[in-house]
Amino acid sequence: MKRLKVTCAYDGTDYQGWQRQSHAHSIQEVLEIMLSKLHQHAITITASGRTDAGVHALGQVFHFDTDKDLDEYHWQAAMNSMLPKDIRIQKVEFVSDDFHARFMAQGKRYDYLVTNRVNDPFCQNYMALERQALDVPAMQECAKVFVGTHDFTSFTSAKIDPRKSRVKTITQLLIKEEAHGIRMIFVGNGFLRYMVRMIAQTLIEAGKHELIKEDIVAMLESRDKQACRYKGAPQGLYLVEVSYGGEL
Amino acid sequence: MKRLKVTCAYDGTDYQGWQRQSHAHSIQEVLEIMLSKLHQHAITITASGRTDAGVHALGQVFHFDTDKDLDEYHWQAAMNSMLPKDIRIQKVEFVSDDFHARFMAQGKRYDYLVTNRVNDPFCQNYMALERQALDVPAMQECAKVFVGTHDFTSFTSAKIDPRKSRVKTITQLLIKEEAHGIRMIFVGNGFLRYMVRMIAQTLIEAGKHELIKEDIVAMLESRDKQACRYKGAPQGLYLVEVSYGGEL
Repeated sequence: MKRLKVTCAYDGTDYQGWQRQSHAHSIQEVLEIMLSKLHQHAITITASGRTDAGVHALGQVFHFDTDKDLDEYHWQAAMNSMLPKDIRIQKVEFVSDDFHARFMAQGKRYDYLVTNRVNDPFCQNYMALERQALDVPAMQECAKVFVGTHDFTSFTSAKIDPRKSRVKTITQLLIKEEAHGIRMIFVGNGFLRYMVRMIAQTLIEAGKHELIKEDIVAMLESRDKQACRYKGAPQGLYLVEVSYGGEL
Repeated sequence: MKRLKVTCAYDGTDYQGWQRQSHAHSIQEVLEIMLSKLHQHAITITASGRTDAGVHALGQVFHFDTDKDLDEYHWQAAMNSMLPKDIRIQKVEFVSDDFHARFMAQGKRYDYLVTNRVNDPFCQNYMALERQALDVPAMQECAKVFVGTHDFTSFTSAKIDPRKSRVKTITQLLIKEEAHGIRMIFVGNGFLRYMVRMIAQTLIEAGKHELIKEDIVAMLESRDKQACRYKGAPQGLYLVEVSYGGEL
């Protein structure tokens, strides 16, 4: 048996997220059905983490074990030939038996894109839409609140397992103006459920002058599941990269 | 009654082209159903021309007559609120009763996009895919063959009405390298069915050194419906603008 580490990109528009569910079309399900056909027996894959419905990925990572004898190039070609065109394999690597896509992930980068091109049909599934002009320097100033190690209880799903730690470290949160809108780049050691979308929408509200820095500091410090009522649209979110030791 | 000129953009991925057909989902049908609901009686619209299945538009133009009393801003808002998000109204203008979106179109711009990012899921529906590297200067040299007034019989559907003129004028055919691939810009007084896609793929073949300039000159001069067996993928094509007198 060999363990394979696979990096894949997907357009999440037509899927109910990464995770296999009984009555919904998921990216994991499509990949597992493809791999099970290739092997002629059931294959289960393990990802670095879930992505929600409508969220995209440029560099999601998963692993699985195989008894098939193919090299990395032919693995990639075989998988891509069997996958729908909205899921594409970027890279296949042989890894040691103890590699684990989730437990060994040391860092992640997510980008969140927002545009004011509300009547551009090509942005609808790929960026969050915001009609109002955003004050980028105000957003950059407020973004500093989140950088560092914090308890992010205020910026995650209220349903999260109470026994799990909500302490995470954001090492970078950059906000850049681009041709079609604004890109927020989040780099950290891990992110809780909805955390990036909740922080992104909070920063959008700051860009609209609906919130000031002190409001955001108070929200973060309250460690209260009800403190943040903002959550950005899923189509603005991209899982860009998962790191297993290297730089992000 | 007032005549309205409407400029719209659409992501053609999920449609069987512009034109209403009995057993297929078309952009015209979606717009006519929306307008008929708004008016509570049947409305027919007339476009500058058709686009094929999978082809996109940034600036398609159509007209229709209305007895409703709305200003341009509210017309746009009303239509966009009732349309799916892959069809968006860009502009609404009151025009004189003799305006005709098809007969009065004086020029059109189409762009054709091709990329070698064959494993990028975000390009699959929005650019033509070509694995091989393309020689852009060779493409630019061959593009000159098409500029000017020519009988384009060799570069259109074999099924075209034999009584119609196949003489068209291309005023510009630019080939530009961009971040994600190559953009070909076609400007002319009108284009025959499949003409842009057939010329675009012919130029891609030139970029792969499968054709040289002399081959292309011979194809054009033969005025033979069988001369060109190339036709670019529809998802690379965008109707960018229709001109009614101004500059393109």
